[in-house]
Amino acid sequence: MSSKRYSKKDRQERLKKEIEDNPFITDEELCELFNVSIQTIRLDRLCLNIPELRERVRNVAKLNYKKVRTIGEAEIVGELIDLELNKKAISILQTDSTMVFKKTKIVRGHFIFAMAESLAMAVIDADVALTGVSNIKYKVPVLSGQKLIAKAEVTRIRGKNYFVHVKITVKDEQVFRGKFILVSI
Amino acid sequence: MSSKRYSKKDRQERLKKEIEDNPFITDEELCELFNVSIQTIRLDRLCLNIPELRERVRNVAKLNYKKVRTIGEAEIVGELIDLELNKKAISILQTDSTMVFKKTKIVRGHFIFAMAESLAMAVIDADVALTGVSNIKYKVPVLSGQKLIAKAEVTRIRGKNYFVHVKITVKDEQVFRGKFILVSI
Repeated sequence: MSSKRYSKKDRQERLKKEIEDNPFITDEELCELFNVSIQTIRLDRLCLNIPELRERVRNVAKLNYKKVRTIGEAEIVGELIDLELNKKAISILQTDSTMVFKKTKIVRGHFIFAMAESLAMAVIDADVALTGVSNIKYKVPVLSGQKLIAKAEVTRIRGKNYFVHVKITVKDEQVFRGKFILVSI
Repeated sequence: MSSKRYSKKDRQERLKKEIEDNPFITDEELCELFNVSIQTIRLDRLCLNIPELRERVRNVAKLNYKKVRTIGEAEIVGELIDLELNKKAISILQTDSTMVFKKTKIVRGHFIFAMAESLAMAVIDADVALTGVSNIKYKVPVLSGQKLIAKAEVTRIRGKNYFVHVKITVKDEQVFRGKFILVSI
């Protein structure tokens, strides 16, 4: 983070570089980074022909969905932004008020679980896979509006069993971790 | 099960008794039991003024929802048919084709998880509770149309931690079990 002000040309160059390095940075985060208003960021993106975050995520996700073998695109909870079959996968989920407990405004656990489980399935290089066992921990309550990033890693493959670890973070803080054993059938 | 035929009067008496003992028996199961057609069962229920299964479940569930403290009625996945706070709870979920993986027609794991987790929350006698840890096992794939019965049991309470076991069965066969540690906040 920096509160330095840049010239317009300078800022737009840095903005472009920033988005290339981290395609999932929000306009709000860019505001803070460059110490300018959100309108300025939007105009900069327009000038540079860089689509808004949602569009960028969708573009990246489109390519990844094609690689998934086990489940359908619509069955993945969140947007799939990276996938190497049998190795690793990343997805993003923008939480909203439809996902929370009324009483606490905390995101219901099974949405987070579904994000993790569906990513664990997507990363498997098999026609059909089902979850056998799972061991999960919710570490920090997630609030409506927070952006979840899930990272799955295939840690071991033994015959038809796939061991997958999934970690979910909000702004680098881990909120959930799950260990899954999936079985290809 | 019996393939004996009863007289109408005899059958209706036994039918009434059967539904009293097991209010969640389906018309299909009654058909098999009495070795008559489904129309006969429906007419018998009409004669005896016994509502259809869905209605019976709803009537029982209504009373139980009032007892739940932690979460809202709509937040429980399935119909809550029995509840003793801090002791045990039972829910029923009729699965359907909207819940399955396209490819396999198997019910998606997170619906089953959501049924178990929400029942574990409902059984807790606290204003607010969240899942901390969970250890689950999917034992048999569930197919669209199968009726799930979840039974939760509070096994231990230590300070703010509640230990809850949930078992889910389809026609007496266990398809899922989950151990949850919930935390009241």
